[in-house]
Amino acid sequence: MIKVVAKNYIKDEKITAFVEAATELVKQTREKDTGCIRYELVQDMKDPHILTMLEEWEDQASLADHGASPHFKKAMEAMKEMIEKPGDSNFYKTLI
Amino acid sequence: MIKVVAKNYIKDEKITAFVEAATELVKQTREKDTGCIRYELVQDMKDPHILTMLEEWEDQASLADHGASPHFKKAMEAMKEMIEKPGDSNFYKTLI
Repeated sequence: MIKVVAKNYIKDEKITAFVEAATELVKQTREKDTGCIRYELVQDMKDPHILTMLEEWEDQASLADHGASPHFKKAMEAMKEMIEKPGDSNFYKTLI
Repeated sequence: MIKVVAKNYIKDEKITAFVEAATELVKQTREKDTGCIRYELVQDMKDPHILTMLEEWEDQASLADHGASPHFKKAMEAMKEMIEKPGDSNFYKTLI
């Protein structure tokens, strides 16, 4: 299993638009992507500009398929102008 | 519910010691801390120095009690000399 934490810093005036686009991505991903165990959008309680995806995938192949999906590409294209500064994504294995 | 992502950058020679201390913290937390829904230790698949806690708590009170617990304080005391550089912790609410 692979766990992903993808943290984004969103422009102040784009928060609503980002949440809308990410919500659509979450729905499409849960519905369509094989191997998706968890796919959530969360928002930092202190800084609403920090919007993060918390994900769990069965394996590398399912994660790669997700990255190549039309709904993922469409969301990335829409989101790129909403980004304030580069975020960071980590891909994790569970130790305990 | 509150979700926590607590990311740590650990010194190369302290990775094993950190994993041991964090494993003990995970066990104690799961056993003793009311309101703990999830408490996991994960390791970045590309950079083993990045060791992160992925947490879910019922509410602010349970998270505060965890922070005040003897096992948490003991772990923080042991871990502080293992840290390479400041990490970051985010406290999240779930949007979807």
